[in-house]
Amino acid sequence: MAGPIGICIHGGCGTLDKSLLTPAEWAETRAHLAASLRAAWAVLSKGGKALDAVEAAVVVMEDSPHFNAGHGAALTAASTHELDASIMDGATKGAGAVCTVKRIRNPIKAARAVMERSDCVLIAGDAADEFAKRQGLAIVENSYFTTQRRLDALASLKRRAESGTLRAASEAERHGTVGAVALDRAGNLAAATSTGGFNNKPVGRVGDTPIVGAGTYARNGVVAVSGTGQGEFFIRNAAAYDIAARMDYGKHEFKASVDALVFDVLKSHGIGAGFAAIDAKGQVYAPYNTLGMARGWIGDDGRLVVATHTEEFAEAA
Amino acid sequence: MAGPIGICIHGGCGTLDKSLLTPAEWAETRAHLAASLRAAWAVLSKGGKALDAVEAAVVVMEDSPHFNAGHGAALTAASTHELDASIMDGATKGAGAVCTVKRIRNPIKAARAVMERSDCVLIAGDAADEFAKRQGLAIVENSYFTTQRRLDALASLKRRAESGTLRAASEAERHGTVGAVALDRAGNLAAATSTGGFNNKPVGRVGDTPIVGAGTYARNGVVAVSGTGQGEFFIRNAAAYDIAARMDYGKHEFKASVDALVFDVLKSHGIGAGFAAIDAKGQVYAPYNTLGMARGWIGDDGRLVVATHTEEFAEAA
Repeated sequence: MAGPIGICIHGGCGTLDKSLLTPAEWAETRAHLAASLRAAWAVLSKGGKALDAVEAAVVVMEDSPHFNAGHGAALTAASTHELDASIMDGATKGAGAVCTVKRIRNPIKAARAVMERSDCVLIAGDAADEFAKRQGLAIVENSYFTTQRRLDALASLKRRAESGTLRAASEAERHGTVGAVALDRAGNLAAATSTGGFNNKPVGRVGDTPIVGAGTYARNGVVAVSGTGQGEFFIRNAAAYDIAARMDYGKHEFKASVDALVFDVLKSHGIGAGFAAIDAKGQVYAPYNTLGMARGWIGDDGRLVVATHTEEFAEAA
Repeated sequence: MAGPIGICIHGGCGTLDKSLLTPAEWAETRAHLAASLRAAWAVLSKGGKALDAVEAAVVVMEDSPHFNAGHGAALTAASTHELDASIMDGATKGAGAVCTVKRIRNPIKAARAVMERSDCVLIAGDAADEFAKRQGLAIVENSYFTTQRRLDALASLKRRAESGTLRAASEAERHGTVGAVALDRAGNLAAATSTGGFNNKPVGRVGDTPIVGAGTYARNGVVAVSGTGQGEFFIRNAAAYDIAARMDYGKHEFKASVDALVFDVLKSHGIGAGFAAIDAKGQVYAPYNTLGMARGWIGDDGRLVVATHTEEFAEAA
């Protein structure tokens, strides 16, 4: 009952041309990041579980329109939402995930239910929606997830696709993911990630977010990480697990291991990417190789930090 | 144009009480393993690509009723088939996969099409069936995959579930997967895996087979592996990628790295498991911790070996 605690979150990298939002909207984005951190901190500071903390943090971001997960999620090419999420308990290496779900208000809660109340790790599609419903989770219409901002972004992307200028689309219009990692007083690590994928994605496409080892990984004594970026490269590189493998087998340092993915493996392929990460000592780290990444953390000093670009905003937790 | 070549396959572990099949059926199982190996060898011995070799090997096993993939696949609890497959090119670390597909005759061909003709790595459900159809791949009714043996096994499992003796069900009634790994003359490694999951599985359940890094992994200069066993543990342990990580970061030996998964990580959790593996020198290895595993290989000596239990049957390729 004496170990350090910490929470680190991201709200997606690739962000964000500052002109995309008004100053008030940027302030609200930071306020929602802070609310996410406080939801986790309320758990951790009372001696609660890292698993509960990361779930609580992700739920706040799923419910916010400012992040690409839950309400505010990206739209598929068919103008629908298909959501992915996963969660991992570093204490047991238990994990749960859902992919291409359409009606679960908080996909991260469904991922946790898969972990704790099924024999599966990953359930796909309508069956996952049905599973969540049977578990008593909140079910919504697919349109609940839609915001005007994503509709505008989808329309813009479709115009660019028609005019052959798709590559000029900003990362902010395309990607985004939310995630949280935490360490609790008992030394348990946990990680959680949730996303709507990317705007104009093909129906049925599954990225790294629901893939334990790609977008999410946690193991006590080593590290917990949650990734954001172009998921296909995260899968091909088993990116989240690779950070743990570098630390465990390669005896590499924590931050160097995260940096190796963000600035070497992924950036070398032109892949915008970022991670929220925490090690077994409670060190928090959230590097990214893009213009910005919504992010935040509270370390054992109780100082709350949120940021979307270079500038960091600190306050007491 | 002088390097060694090799092919190694598995047709699922957890097999197989000898009384399950007649001697003639066991002989046919071995004949189909040999046919799978020869399909790959025809590619490799002419200087063809490892990627083509593993696809050819898996197609033969998908088309055989004796393996749990394609025709002969396991049935879900709803008496339907949902198939998973993935393929990885060790030269590029490109990968493709499909999960919970219902109508693609050869899911491994769809996985390859995802890799080569889409921007995705993984496509789920009906969208993957539609994608395969658009790519001109053979589409079948879901009932094409059904065999009397799987219907009998499902009925037996449902009876056991009702009578509370499910844990007594043999692994052979429950699991099974097919996979192939190869090294070509140019030094390229590749891996491919395909499965129907397990009998009586929940609809929507996704195991390790379509998860690159869990059930399938290949990287030139290191290793190519394809796994079989209870997929949930493979995902949680990033099992396929972990073998490469042990070799790469930990500088562990090839066979010791595969053994670590099969006999340590997975067996310690009571998980029946096996791998087909090949290293960059063309060493083939197919360990398993269960009663048996359908398997086979041809190394650079041109000797073809197939087996389902301890006894190995060798002939000239």
